Amino acid sequence: MLERLQAQVDFALELDRLKSVQRRTTLADASRLENSAEHSWHIALMAVVLAEHGPPKLDVERTVRMLLVHDVVEIDAGDTFCYDETATVGKAEREELAARRLFGLLPDDLGQECLALWHEFESRETPEARFANSVDRFAPLLLNIATEGGSWRRHGVERDQVQRRLAPIGDGAPALWEYTQRLLDQAEERGWFAGGSGPDEPSEPA
Amino acid sequence: MLERLQAQVDFALELDRLKSVQRRTTLADASRLENSAEHSWHIALMAVVLAEHGPPKLDVERTVRMLLVHDVVEIDAGDTFCYDETATVGKAEREELAARRLFGLLPDDLGQECLALWHEFESRETPEARFANSVDRFAPLLLNIATEGGSWRRHGVERDQVQRRLAPIGDGAPALWEYTQRLLDQAEERGWFAGGSGPDEPSEPA
Repeated sequence: MLERLQAQVDFALELDRLKSVQRRTTLADASRLENSAEHSWHIALMAVVLAEHGPPKLDVERTVRMLLVHDVVEIDAGDTFCYDETATVGKAEREELAARRLFGLLPDDLGQECLALWHEFESRETPEARFANSVDRFAPLLLNIATEGGSWRRHGVERDQVQRRLAPIGDGAPALWEYTQRLLDQAEERGWFAGGSGPDEPSEPA
Repeated sequence: MLERLQAQVDFALELDRLKSVQRRTTLADASRLENSAEHSWHIALMAVVLAEHGPPKLDVERTVRMLLVHDVVEIDAGDTFCYDETATVGKAEREELAARRLFGLLPDDLGQECLALWHEFESRETPEARFANSVDRFAPLLLNIATEGGSWRRHGVERDQVQRRLAPIGDGAPALWEYTQRLLDQAEERGWFAGGSGPDEPSEPA
């Protein structure tokens, strides 16, 4: 029993390292980059208050558990910037190894449970995984809007790229997807995307 | 419907400010102070993996929801250092006002639900609230041990104070309380508490 508790405590302490994994988005006040631990809290609570926009009969508990574990692999594998195509090479393998080491710190039953939650999130097949992915992609959109283009502008991202990246929002939460489209239209009008025709970078009509 | 979604989004964005509320504990690598958002993620996930040490038939979902909202009031009221008796004066009133403003941003049904969860956490009367409080107090203990006394040493805290502060761990999770006692004994032997007889501050026998 003590051995089991010790394994749980070792895992709990290892989790602390996720607070040092930086994402590309900043906080809404642009004061610093966001880390993956606080992001995970943010979207877990967002899933609770936005649950009604998910699929009918959504299991909110499993959704929240998935969001709590979804980024833990970044402790070993780091945060991969979603618009960097080079960085995404080998990402799945790196993260699978990370998941096995990290969840492997836990007693076997709990480790298997966490691994299954993470695989479920990544596969985006169940309604809960689809909704969890919606919220995970909706949150940085809000931060990028709050910071007038934020990471899109800093990294020269085009609307088409954002559109593709955010498409899973529509799979899990149609109402959020409609809302997302309006925000992206406004961002485009304000010239926050690369290659756009907004005020920042006027282009000739084709 | 759109008005309802907008209120939920406004709340989600306001939540972002919890990432800028600093606690007195540092990360386990002592690199910086921890913030209340990442702390909330940490203990929500800890509650999932430590649930078996809580009361029988624990409702893990409600425990996790409580932990996700338990520090939201700090957005307005700030983090009150638990060993600062002056700062705790008026804390309850400040936090109640904060809860009403912050959860009041949500549509009424959701706001009431969050307010009830926060009150439940604060009252420590239900098994879920007691277990949630156990984990909330156990986490900074682990960080203080990892940083060789951390905030206890920086602020000259005595073992008796820590003992009283951590006592709710025993109410919600007896196995964690036993484990806690061993950690506190080791910390005392190493002289990490003020007024102790450890190597840091030798005292004469009475």
